[in-house]
Amino acid sequence: MSVNPITPTISLTEAGKRHGFLRLPYSRNDSAWGSIMLPLTVVVGGAGPTALYTGGNHGDEYEGPIALQHLAAELRPEDISGRVIIVPYMNYPAFRAGTRVSPVDGMNLNRSFPGRPDGTATQKIADYFQNVLVPMADLVLDYHSGGKTLDFLPFACAHELDDPAHHAACIAAMEAFGAPYSLRLREIDNVGMYDSAVEAQGRLFVTTELGGGGTATAKSVAIARRGALNLLRHIKILPGEVEPAPSVTLSMPGDDCYHFAGAEGLFEPVRDMGDQVEKGDLIARIWPSDRTGAAPAEQHAQRSGLIAARHFPGLIQMGDCLAVIAERGA
Amino acid sequence: MSVNPITPTISLTEAGKRHGFLRLPYSRNDSAWGSIMLPLTVVVGGAGPTALYTGGNHGDEYEGPIALQHLAAELRPEDISGRVIIVPYMNYPAFRAGTRVSPVDGMNLNRSFPGRPDGTATQKIADYFQNVLVPMADLVLDYHSGGKTLDFLPFACAHELDDPAHHAACIAAMEAFGAPYSLRLREIDNVGMYDSAVEAQGRLFVTTELGGGGTATAKSVAIARRGALNLLRHIKILPGEVEPAPSVTLSMPGDDCYHFAGAEGLFEPVRDMGDQVEKGDLIARIWPSDRTGAAPAEQHAQRSGLIAARHFPGLIQMGDCLAVIAERGA
Amino acid sequence: MSVNPITPTISLTEAGKRHGFLRLPYSRNDSAWGSIMLPLTVVVGGAGPTALYTGGNHGDEYEGPIALQHLAAELRPEDISGRVIIVPYMNYPAFRAGTRVSPVDGMNLNRSFPGRPDGTATQKIADYFQNVLVPMADLVLDYHSGGKTLDFLPFACAHELDDPAHHAACIAAMEAFGAPYSLRLREIDNVGMYDSAVEAQGRLFVTTELGGGGTATAKSVAIARRGALNLLRHIKILPGEVEPAPSVTLSMPGDDCYHFAGAEGLFEPVRDMGDQVEKGDLIARIWPSDRTGAAPAEQHAQRSGLIAARHFPGLIQMGDCLAVIAERGA
Amino acid sequence: MSVNPITPTISLTEAGKRHGFLRLPYSRNDSAWGSIMLPLTVVVGGAGPTALYTGGNHGDEYEGPIALQHLAAELRPEDISGRVIIVPYMNYPAFRAGTRVSPVDGMNLNRSFPGRPDGTATQKIADYFQNVLVPMADLVLDYHSGGKTLDFLPFACAHELDDPAHHAACIAAMEAFGAPYSLRLREIDNVGMYDSAVEAQGRLFVTTELGGGGTATAKSVAIARRGALNLLRHIKILPGEVEPAPSVTLSMPGDDCYHFAGAEGLFEPVRDMGDQVEKGDLIARIWPSDRTGAAPAEQHAQRSGLIAARHFPGLIQMGDCLAVIAERGA
Amino acid sequence: MSVNPITPTISLTEAGKRHGFLRLPYSRNDSAWGSIMLPLTVVVGGAGPTALYTGGNHGDEYEGPIALQHLAAELRPEDISGRVIIVPYMNYPAFRAGTRVSPVDGMNLNRSFPGRPDGTATQKIADYFQNVLVPMADLVLDYHSGGKTLDFLPFACAHELDDPAHHAACIAAMEAFGAPYSLRLREIDNVGMYDSAVEAQGRLFVTTELGGGGTATAKSVAIARRGALNLLRHIKILPGEVEPAPSVTLSMPGDDCYHFAGAEGLFEPVRDMGDQVEKGDLIARIWPSDRTGAAPAEQHAQRSGLIAARHFPGLIQMGDCLAVIAERGA
Amino acid sequence: MSVNPITPTISLTEAGKRHGFLRLPYSRNDSAWGSIMLPLTVVVGGAGPTALYTGGNHGDEYEGPIALQHLAAELRPEDISGRVIIVPYMNYPAFRAGTRVSPVDGMNLNRSFPGRPDGTATQKIADYFQNVLVPMADLVLDYHSGGKTLDFLPFACAHELDDPAHHAACIAAMEAFGAPYSLRLREIDNVGMYDSAVEAQGRLFVTTELGGGGTATAKSVAIARRGALNLLRHIKILPGEVEPAPSVTLSMPGDDCYHFAGAEGLFEPVRDMGDQVEKGDLIARIWPSDRTGAAPAEQHAQRSGLIAARHFPGLIQMGDCLAVIAERGA
Repeated sequence: MSVNPITPTISLTEAGKRHGFLRLPYSRNDSAWGSIMLPLTVVVGGAGPTALYTGGNHGDEYEGPIALQHLAAELRPEDISGRVIIVPYMNYPAFRAGTRVSPVDGMNLNRSFPGRPDGTATQKIADYFQNVLVPMADLVLDYHSGGKTLDFLPFACAHELDDPAHHAACIAAMEAFGAPYSLRLREIDNVGMYDSAVEAQGRLFVTTELGGGGTATAKSVAIARRGALNLLRHIKILPGEVEPAPSVTLSMPGDDCYHFAGAEGLFEPVRDMGDQVEKGDLIARIWPSDRTGAAPAEQHAQRSGLIAARHFPGLIQMGDCLAVIAERGA
Repeated sequence: MSVNPITPTISLTEAGKRHGFLRLPYSRNDSAWGSIMLPLTVVVGGAGPTALYTGGNHGDEYEGPIALQHLAAELRPEDISGRVIIVPYMNYPAFRAGTRVSPVDGMNLNRSFPGRPDGTATQKIADYFQNVLVPMADLVLDYHSGGKTLDFLPFACAHELDDPAHHAACIAAMEAFGAPYSLRLREIDNVGMYDSAVEAQGRLFVTTELGGGGTATAKSVAIARRGALNLLRHIKILPGEVEPAPSVTLSMPGDDCYHFAGAEGLFEPVRDMGDQVEKGDLIARIWPSDRTGAAPAEQHAQRSGLIAARHFPGLIQMGDCLAVIAERGA
Repeated sequence: MSVNPITPTISLTEAGKRHGFLRLPYSRNDSAWGSIMLPLTVVVGGAGPTALYTGGNHGDEYEGPIALQHLAAELRPEDISGRVIIVPYMNYPAFRAGTRVSPVDGMNLNRSFPGRPDGTATQKIADYFQNVLVPMADLVLDYHSGGKTLDFLPFACAHELDDPAHHAACIAAMEAFGAPYSLRLREIDNVGMYDSAVEAQGRLFVTTELGGGGTATAKSVAIARRGALNLLRHIKILPGEVEPAPSVTLSMPGDDCYHFAGAEGLFEPVRDMGDQVEKGDLIARIWPSDRTGAAPAEQHAQRSGLIAARHFPGLIQMGDCLAVIAERGA
Repeated sequence: MSVNPITPTISLTEAGKRHGFLRLPYSRNDSAWGSIMLPLTVVVGGAGPTALYTGGNHGDEYEGPIALQHLAAELRPEDISGRVIIVPYMNYPAFRAGTRVSPVDGMNLNRSFPGRPDGTATQKIADYFQNVLVPMADLVLDYHSGGKTLDFLPFACAHELDDPAHHAACIAAMEAFGAPYSLRLREIDNVGMYDSAVEAQGRLFVTTELGGGGTATAKSVAIARRGALNLLRHIKILPGEVEPAPSVTLSMPGDDCYHFAGAEGLFEPVRDMGDQVEKGDLIARIWPSDRTGAAPAEQHAQRSGLIAARHFPGLIQMGDCLAVIAERGA
Repeated sequence: MSVNPITPTISLTEAGKRHGFLRLPYSRNDSAWGSIMLPLTVVVGGAGPTALYTGGNHGDEYEGPIALQHLAAELRPEDISGRVIIVPYMNYPAFRAGTRVSPVDGMNLNRSFPGRPDGTATQKIADYFQNVLVPMADLVLDYHSGGKTLDFLPFACAHELDDPAHHAACIAAMEAFGAPYSLRLREIDNVGMYDSAVEAQGRLFVTTELGGGGTATAKSVAIARRGALNLLRHIKILPGEVEPAPSVTLSMPGDDCYHFAGAEGLFEPVRDMGDQVEKGDLIARIWPSDRTGAAPAEQHAQRSGLIAARHFPGLIQMGDCLAVIAERGA
Repeated sequence: MSVNPITPTISLTEAGKRHGFLRLPYSRNDSAWGSIMLPLTVVVGGAGPTALYTGGNHGDEYEGPIALQHLAAELRPEDISGRVIIVPYMNYPAFRAGTRVSPVDGMNLNRSFPGRPDGTATQKIADYFQNVLVPMADLVLDYHSGGKTLDFLPFACAHELDDPAHHAACIAAMEAFGAPYSLRLREIDNVGMYDSAVEAQGRLFVTTELGGGGTATAKSVAIARRGALNLLRHIKILPGEVEPAPSVTLSMPGDDCYHFAGAEGLFEPVRDMGDQVEKGDLIARIWPSDRTGAAPAEQHAQRSGLIAARHFPGLIQMGDCLAVIAERGA
């Protein structure tokens, strides 16, 4: 059987704080003996659990990478009980390119689990998390935002799990994070997700969507940073109480929460993020991109609720997710 | 001398409303006798002035195109005194590609004036506006937003002009537009702008920046639509009074309003759009994109004022305009 | 086991006629929650068999898509006994790009069967046909033409099959189609074909090659449209008799039917499509593309027969199929 | 003033036949001191006029290059009175790429005259013909076909010229060529053409359109080869009589000969090349490329006449020339 | 099970010398029925062993292809006892593109073994060597050099093998080759190598690294040519004695032989190829590529020895192999 | 008239040493208000002349950039009399891309002089040197090497100039540089060179070619660094004597020094850099890249002399400069 060629340049277990890399040999036209170098910080304090914090699973989402750079800079081993493993740019080639999927192999890391040790670069990264890092972790926090093409209300998220105790623990961790919204997300296309891979190993798992459009704001970064510390406090790696923050509970209980564009063209949102809409309300128009004087396609709300996500770019393709309407309450 | 090959498929002068195209022959590998077809609506009512309304000068800015699709659909010749010429996607190839500059020749239409009748596609478009459409117009409104890489507070804008009467008339038109902010913008690199080309012909000229990030919102579209009608009322093409709207007056009086990134990396805004900052305040950090554990570059405010514009994407290059700080008042 | 994520937006079984899509979720850089939308028409009449009609298996072949757009527009549920499922653009991303293989994953749909539910976009499409649509069908008609790089005499085609009854039924269906030529085609590289996948499920299968060069003509479209109706009549979905049409029977009995270019350069056909040639005749020259004054490579007929197919573009690479010579008669 | 850097590797004036190149130094990333090498054959016999024969002005048109390779191989200096200069691949980078315009600078050679000695590669080629080769020539024959995106009835062509004697001489030369059709072509976009550059120097000029689709046939090559010899006989470089061939005279007297696509989508020709149509006849449909069940756009003949040219690829863009209808007779 | 579609155009077994191709059908957008044609020479003399000689495993390494073109031209069947199979451009698409990995599928042939008969083009090539050519061979010589991004001291190489007899035989063959250096190479990332595939079949295997930078010299070609003949003499396919040549024995006994760049930027080698360095010596600097006035990163020798390989291009990425230090002696 | 938009971020005249940038505003799709930032160091000491030192005129040549990074780091204002302006990466976008010409506009900076203030990025850089920096300089040193596609013997170079005093001064400066070879270079295509632009302003000008292949060595860097100091000593900006170094004088007196490839294929040098060859000697073979068993094209020396330059990559195109043979002595 193949062995994953990724090696850390620093110890994952020694006490103290170290900054280094996960080195993945990567032979290519412009470097025969090149490597992909995923930045990595490991902070090891006294006895305690291990938290694995990741950002950049998709390369165009920025709250996680920024919060994790802060955490890597600021967390002190003497302050913690346990270990924190920080990988701010998980799909590093995608992060450097500013793209959702890897420019190296065109793959979406979050649909590549469990990965392959002898596969493409993205598959090797997935395999390394699957078989090396996640097994070390008690808690995994994976930051997401909408990226360049989606926008989200800022929420932390837990998935539905079969084991009630596991489920309750994940819900509690999500609540500890303290995002303005707390959501149970049903994924549109769920094969190969990191989320499922972590949950299947019985770990606590929290994910987020903290904004979107391929940017971050001072406000969204503050949410991400507070959540990082809150979770460490929640599992007792950091001392002290979780900093409380009000959070609106949301759910997306049915397929009809998801609205897909029925035409391609110029996208006009008629209702904005966070607006309450009623079933049947006009929520968007799509104007032809090749002429004037023709009526726009109209998109109406399939159910009542809050606009919790929307398509971001000004042009839209048929079948793009145009908006997601969430219900208040679980 | 060369003749511009662009021809309108509809009359620019006959009474009534017509939707058609500006047809620009464009021979290329995938169509030897192809054309670029710029959508065009002309509405001719009773006697009165001519307004030329344009969007899509940069192809990734969307408030203008949406507002102009509405106007083209809704304006009725029987309601107007004069003529309105509407070109919602001025640099049509860029609009279709969702890019600032034209994918056809790599040119920025707003730096291509006065254009050339025998030049590239973008130069031919510029020449046609310069020599055919602008000379027909009493008032020109050119919608802009920040596009995919900048964000702006929503403002209408007038430039400083030598002729006091011309200047005052442009200021009055800007005020009539009724954007939340009203600004006198000094361009960073001003050779070849449409703005200057129009102003040099003595026309009333109003431009805007109504948001950014390569998207639009219900709110920003409403500003754009109200402004379109207000300007038509202001020059008496539409009857009735200008709809009043509160507007904060801003100016950018010096080079030090513009803050350029001193490093490349992961961009963390520390202050958000519209925030008041004082000279010396930390406004952004730039983290290394290749490692953890290294200090970020810090950017401080060069003067006090309002954050009126900022870099949008999560990654930043050295020399990118990171933020613009404006002063309240003219 | 993975479940194929494709879902139809319309019922495949309810009586009546509906136009909709097969929606395939497709996350990508320019739409995180995007979809590939394959147009689909389902016509359900009285009791009877099911026909599955497809075009656009290769994205640069046009007779099938045009004939199927006509059929989708014109077929009335009250006229038919059974069901017709129409997918005019089977490899939709390739069709939109005008390319043989998918621009999304570089794959040839007709070499991707049986597909994978958790594979690339092309593999998911193959899997959906393999496991959902083909099992519903009694008869499958898959339109092909030569595409941008080959030209064919217009023929319908049946493959040799082990089961004599199955074989005879396919031959009869091919004859019912009524193309000017009827052929038994041996494929050059036959792993992963849709043809074999359908035949292995014991369905009637007819395919065609109706021209080529990446275009269609009024004449070739007429052949495609007549064949579509004839096959429906043949299996009694439509009432009435098959419209008779004269057809020349052809075969390609040996490897030496296929002529491959022995040099790269400028391709000069010396004999045209449909010409009768004798073994040893000069059929093409290949001139050097980098100089004058050098003798061309000459290609001679390896056997006597009809020029039934040829390379289309003016430049040729070594190893390209330059011509296929068929024999009259089975 | 700049000097054109192109140099021939062989003499243009010495008696005999030589094969060589026009060498254009071309510094680029993959060859700092590289060159573009245009193949060239010069045949110099006894006293007499000079003919300049060119193909590959557009890189995806093949009858000319093939006929000129034959001529370069077969013409013997002892048989001719005068000189023949043969450049079969005029825009050599485009010819090698199989594209209409140059991959080197994106320029259409036939819209680049008079060129520039210090411009891009295409401009340098234009300048060299303008200032070196055309001034040497009494007669210029420039072969064209429709290329990959247009198809033409096979015709030779003369343009209307102000000088009656010049005009008559060009008409006579066109007739001597002996194509199945003879046409006076009005160009859609005529700035920068080689044709005009040659005619302005008072030379005899004949051009052709001998088919299209980016391929050649045995039949179209035969037309091209016969025409090459006929013209040499016509101006007495070769002895003997012009080989007579029947030719239908055509004209395109008005703008309404040219039909442009009013929609984008799947192109269905309803009438074929050479068909006689009456004003108002349906000549093509354009089906939506993104759905079934929607009516196609219909294109009707703007005047009566012959289908003399048409769009070739199966997909069409708005504004593409869909068909040209010609009148019989001059 | 799938059958590999590659077929040789010449006999691999008949006596005499033939030049031909391995033809791999390859359907693609620009040739629906195209092929990849790997040049092949087979020389069959009297009874004796079979040698399989390959170059172009990576497409940007040139000593092997040149030496094998010489050998294919010069080797005479009457001079040999046995058979020599010569494939100078093993990954032909990569060789034509001048790239390490295949432009067709992005794969590194030397990490694609054992390949797949129904995989991508590179996988099919690997499978064909694995299952057809290597089983025919007693000795395999695979030429490598550093390619465009690495430089090597010229060495022949044998790997460590478990079977002492096999190991000794490979060492003896390596010594017979007669390169200036003889090395036991530990590969950085060894899954899927041709080397291992050959060795696992119990064949004699010799590989080389004969220079680099994507070029060859008269001197390095001479080494390659001498080695080719020496090996044939060594296994008695050619008569006569191995031509003796002095060779320095090297080894790379530990991970610390390999030096990876710790920063990206402008690469300055401080010590050159073949220089003796001591542990701790400065061997390279990496200057920032975006500014002046900042200190370069410095790279020091991790052990004493000879600079046996180095990064070639002037720019370097973090994680690129910057230098390899070898020890004299085995 | 347009004003060049480039501005230095540091003073060019104040005493002391400063590191900064030449900032060129550059609006593009991925940064609407972006800039190109050319690193710049200015060292101002006591009264004295000004030297302008540049590297990276072509982006794939590395001795200059490395030597200038050293100089920028090490030169102290207190040690010099006069001023040194250092721009190590003159065509910065090309340097970052590792390409000869700019990726931004495809232009060769060294063929873009005198530039245009309102042109492309490369033209603006040329204009800024032409009109701002060169007029400030008494001496200009512009480092070149062969780049990725050529290799040179290491030489300093002076061009022939009309003014004997100017000529003599340049020769003296070239000699002071102290490269192993000293050459009078005739450029193949000399329109738009920086060299000519500087010389036409009457400045002392020295250029170099210090190796090639897109790499640098410890040895070639040492030559570059010594030359930088020697020239400063020569014009008395640095005190002390020029460090003497033996230099072989070379010339390239005729067109026949330059050997161009007569075929495309696999390039085999038969003689190496610095070898003495006699007229008629075989210097290279070019093997077909598509087959074995065909004779290579052979290239013979057109004159006797030293191999002073050669094509570097393993593949060669027709018309590439294959080798340059120089004569010893001026």
